[in-house]
Amino acid sequence: MRKSIVADAQTKDEQIFTEAVRIFREKGYHAASMQNIADAVGLRKASLYHYISSKEQLLSKIFEQSTGALTQQLEIIIASSDSPTEKLRRAIQAHLTALTEQLDIYTVYLSERRELAARVNAKVRAQAEQHARLIEKILEQGIKTGDFRATDVKMAALAIIGMCNWLYQWYSPTGRLQPTEIANIFSDLIAHGLGPASKSRKG
Amino acid sequence: MRKSIVADAQTKDEQIFTEAVRIFREKGYHAASMQNIADAVGLRKASLYHYISSKEQLLSKIFEQSTGALTQQLEIIIASSDSPTEKLRRAIQAHLTALTEQLDIYTVYLSERRELAARVNAKVRAQAEQHARLIEKILEQGIKTGDFRATDVKMAALAIIGMCNWLYQWYSPTGRLQPTEIANIFSDLIAHGLGPASKSRKG
Repeated sequence: MRKSIVADAQTKDEQIFTEAVRIFREKGYHAASMQNIADAVGLRKASLYHYISSKEQLLSKIFEQSTGALTQQLEIIIASSDSPTEKLRRAIQAHLTALTEQLDIYTVYLSERRELAARVNAKVRAQAEQHARLIEKILEQGIKTGDFRATDVKMAALAIIGMCNWLYQWYSPTGRLQPTEIANIFSDLIAHGLGPASKSRKG
Repeated sequence: MRKSIVADAQTKDEQIFTEAVRIFREKGYHAASMQNIADAVGLRKASLYHYISSKEQLLSKIFEQSTGALTQQLEIIIASSDSPTEKLRRAIQAHLTALTEQLDIYTVYLSERRELAARVNAKVRAQAEQHARLIEKILEQGIKTGDFRATDVKMAALAIIGMCNWLYQWYSPTGRLQPTEIANIFSDLIAHGLGPASKSRKG
């Protein structure tokens, strides 16, 4: 009996989370109301507050969930015995898979950052910095092993994260390429650039 | 006499534009009101409508201005006699210079896209596509001359635009690097990747 009560509570939490993501995306965070979310999950507004204390808390939870899982994956990739080039490919793939599988969450996450109170923003900023540090770590490993040339790892990490995050602006699930294919193209671009093959082609 | 009236009118237009950008950025597009803009430029709300018909028109104007100048620059770069690698470097530099010099405008532009009515959005989308096509053109020129390897130019262009646009999320005028330095790092990354120098270093 006890177990089923817990299970029900989790289901309602998840349901609130899913509907909040959908409503934030559709209406924008500002225009969305707790009443909208209550309506969507079939609760009275007063009952909704039993599950969640504020709209801000919900958005914060969305942010944590969207970046937390990705950070864990990146840590596993870094600890693996793969080559730095392969680690980078896997990191880009993990990023694009997370983003495209949860496009709703990432769209809210990436477009509503500045709408958050400073307290929540600090947490989100810390998570974004953690993501950047993990990419920098892969780059540093590659420079150490000689797989990558010496470069400004902070700028390179921001470039990689930027090209990946930007997908939320243009990616469509019905588009020409799958996330894995896009990740491979991006990885090749970062690992080898546009130039290398040109030398053998020139003249 | 006539000339000075025109000059005054232009100044007020520019003033409205500048204040609108600042207010949209500070308050967000939704929360900002025509009254806020009227107050900032010392006009009555009714008089403001003499210059501009709606908040949406202002935002649309912001978008056009921010991307129009950059598009013109890219066309000049493409038509130049520079090598494709140099064209790419100049295109990235033009993008980052425009973005960092008008960080307010770009922040509004890149974060408020989806707030616009479909009519305006279509225009903005067309401008973004035009930017992408110009970058694709540089890549195609480079593939043709053998300076670049064959690649998916559409994806490479989106990667380049994404890494550049993402600056609006992290760039600070008081940061460690100037936009030109960032543009050089990004160009090197795209042209040569992380790998090339590694071969001489390995073993």
